Amino acid sequence: MNEPRLILYELAGSDPQLRFSPHCWKIRMALAHKGLQADRRPWRFTDKEAIAFSGQGLVPVLIDGAHVVSDSWRIALHLEERFADRPPLFGAPQAAAVARFVNSWADTTLLPAIARLILLDIHNILDEKDRDYFRATREQRYGNTLEQVVQDQQVHLDRLRHTLTPLRHLLGGQAFLGGQQPNYADYCVFGMFMWARCTSNVALLATDDTVHAWRERLLDLFDGLARQAPHHKAVPELPDA
Amino acid sequence: MNEPRLILYELAGSDPQLRFSPHCWKIRMALAHKGLQADRRPWRFTDKEAIAFSGQGLVPVLIDGAHVVSDSWRIALHLEERFADRPPLFGAPQAAAVARFVNSWADTTLLPAIARLILLDIHNILDEKDRDYFRATREQRYGNTLEQVVQDQQVHLDRLRHTLTPLRHLLGGQAFLGGQQPNYADYCVFGMFMWARCTSNVALLATDDTVHAWRERLLDLFDGLARQAPHHKAVPELPDA
Repeated sequence: MNEPRLILYELAGSDPQLRFSPHCWKIRMALAHKGLQADRRPWRFTDKEAIAFSGQGLVPVLIDGAHVVSDSWRIALHLEERFADRPPLFGAPQAAAVARFVNSWADTTLLPAIARLILLDIHNILDEKDRDYFRATREQRYGNTLEQVVQDQQVHLDRLRHTLTPLRHLLGGQAFLGGQQPNYADYCVFGMFMWARCTSNVALLATDDTVHAWRERLLDLFDGLARQAPHHKAVPELPDA
Repeated sequence: MNEPRLILYELAGSDPQLRFSPHCWKIRMALAHKGLQADRRPWRFTDKEAIAFSGQGLVPVLIDGAHVVSDSWRIALHLEERFADRPPLFGAPQAAAVARFVNSWADTTLLPAIARLILLDIHNILDEKDRDYFRATREQRYGNTLEQVVQDQQVHLDRLRHTLTPLRHLLGGQAFLGGQQPNYADYCVFGMFMWARCTSNVALLATDDTVHAWRERLLDLFDGLARQAPHHKAVPELPDA
């Protein structure tokens, strides 16, 4: 098969190279897992018309020839089916159903717990034209100012670390959610940590947490793809903080 | 293959037919999934010597010929390997690793949330000889009396229903954790609901909750195996409450 031509729309900050969406990171890792390259195009929250062709207004959006696929879960299933001869994202087709629970847990439990720590930081790395949109939609969702949402950082940090209990428990028995090797279940969770890494200085994990060691293993994958990705402030003295 | 002779030790209440352990229920469903029968022996918390042969003090314990296996996760893996020609518990071998996250979530997130609602009810269905042991160990664990632990029922109910968010989210897209058909991932979660059903009258789920509909489907499996199992008080006017 010739190398397919893939286009991926990813959420970007004011720095167009800063790609911080947790859902886009799931797909970024999935593409690397399959050994695929994509033309990764920056997109901002307010660029609704730029992806109107997808019939909705959120990224990631993947263009694969005649196929336009949105929603990270559907993109992962598309990649698995279209590139079935490449390393499987789910280990086996029957495993996708259960992996979807990990994705649901990441989206509905982990994401809100991390949001409480980084929401204001996200605002601050956005392109000027996105900031009002972001503040207005999020402040309506939370019924509070961004500044108020992220108050009491220690409380939110304790809650996040408690939220990670099932992952920590699992990692006592195996190296990855996927078992001995990482798979899409790992990327569903790791995307949330990349969201924070790209936008914020908050240290989400204690260094002696098994979840920290797992995150390090994910940062090392694919020749350090995620570790080397631009984040909000590449201060030399704090490269991996 | 001749029918194997399996012996399963299960936690029982003062009524020896009342088998209420969440972890034993995982295995009960797994055996039915594989079309296996076991000689199911009642065991009480204080019968430590009765299972000393297993090298530890908790049920379930499975005896399968020369194999003695404890810990529900290890028993499930044993059944999957030993009876590989029967319906798979994990869909595919590669799916077991991810299903283990569901098990970790059930054990570390769901179980504590349900415990806050039924701990005193559990105490009340126990055999007389187990009650002091149960009260002492649980009150030490919680640093409070059983009566205090289950106070504020509405608060704990709200928390439980919030805890179920990722499962509810998943069930918006598929019928079971296993996909179109249930598998061991479903039983890991369902065991927690059987624990409550066997010991308590508390209505954990609103009837319009998709999790309620999923639980009904699980209760119907294997000719109503779980639905027909003895629970704490088979009051005719409230058979499925």
